Amino acid sequence: MALSLTSSEVIGLFEKLSNWGRWGKDDQRGALNFITDKKRASAARLAQTGETVSLALPLAVTPAADNPTPVTHLIVQAGIDSDRAWLPHAADYFAIAFHGMANTHIDALCHVFWQGKMYNGFSAGEVGSHGAHKCAIDVARQGLVSRGVLLDIPKLRKVEWLEPGDRIMATELDAAEKEHGVRVEEGDILLIRTGRSRRRKSKDAWDPNREGLPGLDPTCLPWIHERRVAILGSDAVSDVLPSGYKDILLPIHVCTLVTMGVHLLDNADFDALAETCARLGRYEFMFASAPLILERGTGSPVNPLAIF
Amino acid sequence: MALSLTSSEVIGLFEKLSNWGRWGKDDQRGALNFITDKKRASAARLAQTGETVSLALPLAVTPAADNPTPVTHLIVQAGIDSDRAWLPHAADYFAIAFHGMANTHIDALCHVFWQGKMYNGFSAGEVGSHGAHKCAIDVARQGLVSRGVLLDIPKLRKVEWLEPGDRIMATELDAAEKEHGVRVEEGDILLIRTGRSRRRKSKDAWDPNREGLPGLDPTCLPWIHERRVAILGSDAVSDVLPSGYKDILLPIHVCTLVTMGVHLLDNADFDALAETCARLGRYEFMFASAPLILERGTGSPVNPLAIF
Amino acid sequence: MALSLTSSEVIGLFEKLSNWGRWGKDDQRGALNFITDKKRASAARLAQTGETVSLALPLAVTPAADNPTPVTHLIVQAGIDSDRAWLPHAADYFAIAFHGMANTHIDALCHVFWQGKMYNGFSAGEVGSHGAHKCAIDVARQGLVSRGVLLDIPKLRKVEWLEPGDRIMATELDAAEKEHGVRVEEGDILLIRTGRSRRRKSKDAWDPNREGLPGLDPTCLPWIHERRVAILGSDAVSDVLPSGYKDILLPIHVCTLVTMGVHLLDNADFDALAETCARLGRYEFMFASAPLILERGTGSPVNPLAIF
Amino acid sequence: MALSLTSSEVIGLFEKLSNWGRWGKDDQRGALNFITDKKRASAARLAQTGETVSLALPLAVTPAADNPTPVTHLIVQAGIDSDRAWLPHAADYFAIAFHGMANTHIDALCHVFWQGKMYNGFSAGEVGSHGAHKCAIDVARQGLVSRGVLLDIPKLRKVEWLEPGDRIMATELDAAEKEHGVRVEEGDILLIRTGRSRRRKSKDAWDPNREGLPGLDPTCLPWIHERRVAILGSDAVSDVLPSGYKDILLPIHVCTLVTMGVHLLDNADFDALAETCARLGRYEFMFASAPLILERGTGSPVNPLAIF
Repeated sequence: MALSLTSSEVIGLFEKLSNWGRWGKDDQRGALNFITDKKRASAARLAQTGETVSLALPLAVTPAADNPTPVTHLIVQAGIDSDRAWLPHAADYFAIAFHGMANTHIDALCHVFWQGKMYNGFSAGEVGSHGAHKCAIDVARQGLVSRGVLLDIPKLRKVEWLEPGDRIMATELDAAEKEHGVRVEEGDILLIRTGRSRRRKSKDAWDPNREGLPGLDPTCLPWIHERRVAILGSDAVSDVLPSGYKDILLPIHVCTLVTMGVHLLDNADFDALAETCARLGRYEFMFASAPLILERGTGSPVNPLAIF
Repeated sequence: MALSLTSSEVIGLFEKLSNWGRWGKDDQRGALNFITDKKRASAARLAQTGETVSLALPLAVTPAADNPTPVTHLIVQAGIDSDRAWLPHAADYFAIAFHGMANTHIDALCHVFWQGKMYNGFSAGEVGSHGAHKCAIDVARQGLVSRGVLLDIPKLRKVEWLEPGDRIMATELDAAEKEHGVRVEEGDILLIRTGRSRRRKSKDAWDPNREGLPGLDPTCLPWIHERRVAILGSDAVSDVLPSGYKDILLPIHVCTLVTMGVHLLDNADFDALAETCARLGRYEFMFASAPLILERGTGSPVNPLAIF
Repeated sequence: MALSLTSSEVIGLFEKLSNWGRWGKDDQRGALNFITDKKRASAARLAQTGETVSLALPLAVTPAADNPTPVTHLIVQAGIDSDRAWLPHAADYFAIAFHGMANTHIDALCHVFWQGKMYNGFSAGEVGSHGAHKCAIDVARQGLVSRGVLLDIPKLRKVEWLEPGDRIMATELDAAEKEHGVRVEEGDILLIRTGRSRRRKSKDAWDPNREGLPGLDPTCLPWIHERRVAILGSDAVSDVLPSGYKDILLPIHVCTLVTMGVHLLDNADFDALAETCARLGRYEFMFASAPLILERGTGSPVNPLAIF
Repeated sequence: MALSLTSSEVIGLFEKLSNWGRWGKDDQRGALNFITDKKRASAARLAQTGETVSLALPLAVTPAADNPTPVTHLIVQAGIDSDRAWLPHAADYFAIAFHGMANTHIDALCHVFWQGKMYNGFSAGEVGSHGAHKCAIDVARQGLVSRGVLLDIPKLRKVEWLEPGDRIMATELDAAEKEHGVRVEEGDILLIRTGRSRRRKSKDAWDPNREGLPGLDPTCLPWIHERRVAILGSDAVSDVLPSGYKDILLPIHVCTLVTMGVHLLDNADFDALAETCARLGRYEFMFASAPLILERGTGSPVNPLAIF
């Protein structure tokens, strides 16, 4: 398939869609600024039935084709011999490198660079051996609460899932809105379902770096910018893999994180969410998540909730 | 100060207040069963202003008297030399043994045992080298959303904070309700402030095992049971340290986790919450948190939110 | 190929070759007792040219078919931004689960159990949540120094390497001794080369659990016992994989570690050693290694040296 | 006590004692080049009685004043419930940041920088997020085997141990040689005992950064250079803490690692060694150690052996 945009057109978007300076030259929160108290209060009014749906995969402790460096989860104190402890108890330990293709996590704005810069023009050098001095994940310590909107692309296309390499075009975002009866607005948390986790459950894991992932074509970037999306989430990694651009490996990551200041939610699981939205006939809900307060961190594993 | 209850009276409470079997002999969720969809929907109606307040301390990466085994937070890829990577990016890694006195976390019901048993009579042996086969934290994977209620004991006592070893009596819970104009009800998430984090900021860290912590006297246990609290949270660890009972090191932990099936939130930070409640004149709010889905885990670090 | 020994004959060997009680009922060192001061002094006299050869693979930091849980090696402080530190320096961190098929390590006698027992009849229950109370690796804290002897089976068979599943028979140990002009004696550290690491370098990694490894047939066990070998080493894991016995997954591990009290050296690299032995026409040398003093540990990664 | 050398005299030594270029401009091994095959063979002839002595402390798993970030040692599989595993076994995991004041380790030449350079003029920038591209610890993968010489300063001074802050002067190295009947020569591994570990056993741990450590005065540097020492070892960290020089925190570290290319052995335990040397009346022995092959690493934990 021929690409809709050339490489230099994509790079042109990086400049055209920039939010650098929009909230001041010192701003480190980017599009989170679109989420106001009023927006949150209005999101809460969507929580009507009280049903909650987790949008996270379990922490990925098992090595797999898409999980070369699994979470280390160890039992520090087991119950079985806990009578030897000062107080009979059980406790554990885990170690996680949460970026990658296996764990549901939020990318901080300092996670990716373009031409040596992160969001708002801060230097990549601001992330040194001791972490991020700018745009770390703890800018979101008060939580990510807003209206969530799901666009279920497999439903739109009437398929079980998108295949690796499948590109979602901006026109499909419009079509999905229409099909679902919802419209993405300022400050929303936009969740795009590709069906990746359903495919993984059916077919076993695959290596996204070798075999690809479905995701957004760069034509979606102006759409996301125009709608003033606060956070973009995916059950894959938002980007199509491979991107199709030799010199721009992850155009969506670059344009959202670096240019627009939009935090990303990667590797979520939207299967249960899609079922709930379909059952209730409602593709908007209260979204609530809070990254762990990892000061100077480049992101955090999360278990986001949709509340209906 | 003489104790209000003898050791055998406390043990008597463990039997009297038992919820074993209340939700069936296979139940692993305990008092989370008090939180219904209706309760959650009603909690969401408390989110009126849209203000959010984090209830978590930052992940505790620095060794301190109350943090002998700090979180290991390392930068896997720094920005400063990220041009050597396939895609210029930054990434990190952290390792955490979240129980203890330093990190805000939820205790799963399998975390503590009494006489070789956890909640609902499951054997301590169900937690082996590979984790918990019963009552693991992932019973809460759909999140912990309900009405939160803060009882601010320092405010009631008109002090800055409670001192290590100070005991909160059941009568003070009633008095705090009255002072705050709130009443704890079925399915609530009850948060008791001792002011520990304010004291720590003023006076530096201390070792709770040597120097103690303020907390609930066991006389509060029938109160918590009667009110059908779903989750109990503290800016300390709910228990007074030392407990005053030679053979019962953590009576509140035992009676909530093991007997009543009440999950605990330990080491939270309620300072900002207390200020917000006082400012708004409202001690009830929407509480939203979701443990990481650590299958077979004994708990999870969390960053809970209060939404007003 | 029909097996030389039936399953019950192998189990018979476990009883017949037992060293339990040989050095007293409290002994935790097993066949290390064969290494006397005199033996070490005599081994040192083999160090004549002063050449040293490492017998270890590099720590396995890269995921591979034989390395599902790689060593985590992270830079705590890089040089590139070390001017921000109190003293310009660089430092690292590593995390390792050293058992497995990828890292050169010593197995302590508490690493494997047979019918609930480890060496000398200690209960498997002696290894609890806090490690091994008997037969931990620190019984070897004063080091493993003795005469090393290499038997190079691919050389004997005039092949580049043994194939996965290939069985080395006791008669081949005799033949290799004769070919090499060496005789294994009391207190020796016996190293058996299968050529695994050469095969891995030529053909890429494979999963030993699915595709197998070459190793010793159980007929070698009486031979090892009779010669009073102190430590047994392999460039694979001493055992043939699969063992051929449905109920005895690792007969060599069981009989050496549990029955005879012989520590094992797993996943070594004997390629350079074999070249040196062939060049010098000498298959005996001073062997020197020292496990890290991991108290209560079940083994240690090592970098053993052959000194000629 | 007035310092013998001014700050600029110490910096003068860094230039005067330089071995940069001595073994070629690409050399990464520094003074290890002093250790020849002949030297090793001659060292082996010192192994006459066959006694071995470990020079390492146990891995430091317990938080202490000198160990703020202890080794994480966890049991992956305990024996007590190992019947649930595919093969009944026990296994562990450890994570270590080995630099610091608590674990016996070798410093690679890339561990410390002076004016942005490491040994032989390589840039500090050669150590990036993925480790050291120059002078990593794996230059020593074939092991550290040579003659070891102990200089027991407390014995010379007829005290139990040196106090924190005590300075060892070059004249004392001469005096100790004379007292012990030994002379340090080219390629030797020089071990200086301060008695720190004995003091720690008697008095409990202290924080070296606050309370200091005994060590070598910079006047010892020309002596070490002239004698062509290959490796310098200490039961403390070779440097006096505090150094007494405001701008030069660790003059011995800088001059040995950066200027002379001498690897350091830090935090060893020479108590048993000192007893053995005194008993045998011999302060020279075969030294054998091998760092783990941590490619791109800045050092390694070790358990070095003295063989008599």
